[in-house]
Amino acid sequence: MLGNFTFHNPTKLHFGEDSLSKLSEELKNYDKKVMLCYGGGSIKRNGIYDQVMAELKKAGCEVVEIAGVMPNPTIEKVLEGAHMARQENVDFILGVGGGSTVDYCKAVAGSAWYDGDPWEYYFKNWQPMTCRWIPVGCVLTMAGTGSEMDSCSVISSHTENRKLFYNFRNPDFSILNPRFTFTVPKYQMVAGIYDIMSHILEQYLSGTDDNTSDYIAEGLMRSLIVSSRKANVNPEDYEARSNIMWTATWALNTLIDRAKATDWMVHMLGQAVAAYTDATHGHTLAAVSGAYYRLLISKSPDAVQKFKRLAMNVWGVSAEVKTDEQVAMEGLETMEQWMRELGLAMNITDCGAKPELIEGMADACPICQGGYYILNRDEVVQVLKDSL
Amino acid sequence: MLGNFTFHNPTKLHFGEDSLSKLSEELKNYDKKVMLCYGGGSIKRNGIYDQVMAELKKAGCEVVEIAGVMPNPTIEKVLEGAHMARQENVDFILGVGGGSTVDYCKAVAGSAWYDGDPWEYYFKNWQPMTCRWIPVGCVLTMAGTGSEMDSCSVISSHTENRKLFYNFRNPDFSILNPRFTFTVPKYQMVAGIYDIMSHILEQYLSGTDDNTSDYIAEGLMRSLIVSSRKANVNPEDYEARSNIMWTATWALNTLIDRAKATDWMVHMLGQAVAAYTDATHGHTLAAVSGAYYRLLISKSPDAVQKFKRLAMNVWGVSAEVKTDEQVAMEGLETMEQWMRELGLAMNITDCGAKPELIEGMADACPICQGGYYILNRDEVVQVLKDSL
Repeated sequence: MLGNFTFHNPTKLHFGEDSLSKLSEELKNYDKKVMLCYGGGSIKRNGIYDQVMAELKKAGCEVVEIAGVMPNPTIEKVLEGAHMARQENVDFILGVGGGSTVDYCKAVAGSAWYDGDPWEYYFKNWQPMTCRWIPVGCVLTMAGTGSEMDSCSVISSHTENRKLFYNFRNPDFSILNPRFTFTVPKYQMVAGIYDIMSHILEQYLSGTDDNTSDYIAEGLMRSLIVSSRKANVNPEDYEARSNIMWTATWALNTLIDRAKATDWMVHMLGQAVAAYTDATHGHTLAAVSGAYYRLLISKSPDAVQKFKRLAMNVWGVSAEVKTDEQVAMEGLETMEQWMRELGLAMNITDCGAKPELIEGMADACPICQGGYYILNRDEVVQVLKDSL
Repeated sequence: MLGNFTFHNPTKLHFGEDSLSKLSEELKNYDKKVMLCYGGGSIKRNGIYDQVMAELKKAGCEVVEIAGVMPNPTIEKVLEGAHMARQENVDFILGVGGGSTVDYCKAVAGSAWYDGDPWEYYFKNWQPMTCRWIPVGCVLTMAGTGSEMDSCSVISSHTENRKLFYNFRNPDFSILNPRFTFTVPKYQMVAGIYDIMSHILEQYLSGTDDNTSDYIAEGLMRSLIVSSRKANVNPEDYEARSNIMWTATWALNTLIDRAKATDWMVHMLGQAVAAYTDATHGHTLAAVSGAYYRLLISKSPDAVQKFKRLAMNVWGVSAEVKTDEQVAMEGLETMEQWMRELGLAMNITDCGAKPELIEGMADACPICQGGYYILNRDEVVQVLKDSL
């Protein structure tokens, strides 16, 4: 663990089939006016809304609602929520949904009592939050983003065609009931699984030092591989879905990036593809990673060593009578076999990309500095072409 | 992750060579009267005391000191500290030392404003803490117990010949500078390493379900094995010592026992030996584990399977052309080879135990219910005899 760092993650997690019963207990710690945020209304169809409302009633809360939080929440929707939160003077913001809903709640919580333009102030200029913060909690219905135990909020602007993030504050508590994730369609479930895998890899694939964070990351990947295969066969396998949900949280709550440079290039590439295709996040990550990882292996001896370690410790590849490059590549191919098994998009054409969009995607793609090799723009274009 | 549980660990960790510089910043969040607790005075000889005092001065603190906190802090010493903390009306308790000092600070923090007998109330009867709590922080100088990020406090009574624990509250912050652990003598360093290994194993060795906690535990063990071998050759290997320090914290901060039954039998046996020999904690654990684990493997098919997994995933044993029992045993033997490498006590005779003490030790040994096999008293005696 070279370097200096701070770890602090005060979010309280209630996990399990009965975890929603903790909601009324938690809400008793706050004043009574709660703003309930959710998405397109699936929680009304699957009964989660009614269960949450019963808990709110039990806690004696007065509820105002904002529905229609979209998969990539917009700054316009944030402003609508912030206006409502301030006008109604709410004491607490409760999100019920996936990572987008939780991200949205954080942005509303930090914007309600800010008098200026939160898009300019927070997301574009990363200025410190000094206004009153409204505490946030969540009931998670989808595993993947890790937003339930971090401070990050990703918000989009359609007018500027940009998707930016800001670190507000963590939720005070998050309620994780794996059964609530059963209603997620399989296409979304596997996208979430690859999002988790990519989060872990993007922290793991940097540095040449010996760091405990990498060993924990390997453990999380091994668990995710076993459980994703079971969930792929039977999405209602509670044990598998619970492990996936727990892994998602620990993949991105800052534990495994301690003393790591990290390389978020797959996310940058995937998000650039998504900006032009509106394809599902996890599938865009899957679609670009093969080409990017092959480039890394071809350019960097350090990358070869780390992919070799990944192959042996996570994908069960034997190193006997093979060169380091062969072991590294065999690991990558084993991973791609697992990706095909899950039905992930294996190229950006499947995500709706076309060759004529590549230049625009490359313009929309920031270049990370923390990985084994730093791309130039031509190489970004090449990776995207190789991903077609 | 079967079952319902809560995870909440709000301790802020400052880690690294420069982490002590965070102390004055942290102390600015509290009122000014600080009680400084430490052990036998080694921090005065190695300069840590002066560095801490400079930070306290920088924060404008008024300091009262209590020195002489012993390796197994006694309830009498707790009462002395609690009396001082109350009389001086201290605002904050800062421990500088190893796990014993941190445990001591928690006990003082929860006892100062309690009017009755804390030994009876907390440690013997596990009654809830309702009195005023004095916030605690620590500067850790030894890796092993995990007390820097948990609520546990282990206190001894010589008059009753008992060592009991109570869960108070977590430290608000802990400062972990791996360089501060360099002055720990090698015999203590390896004892700390085995204490960490045993903490992980005692959580890992229970249950037959597929649980992400076990995968994280495997990652921590793999890291510990690599780093302990390096630290054994060169105790001033900063990278290795930093990984050991970080692993110790995550081995016992409740992360890897989520949804686990756990089996703390090695700690029970080791503590019974220590009660009669005063041998170092980690060495007593090492001295009893071989016999206990062999008994588990001989009695429980579930234990065979888990030891087989341990052998393959942590100790690098190949399962080819072997029975499950053979793989399990080969893993255990590989672990014992590592233990000998480190110079750990491999039997309780080396800890100062004698055959005539065995019956008394068995009387002092509680029997855990969460593992693969529940011992009867005769079997406790047998494990202790086999450990001679």
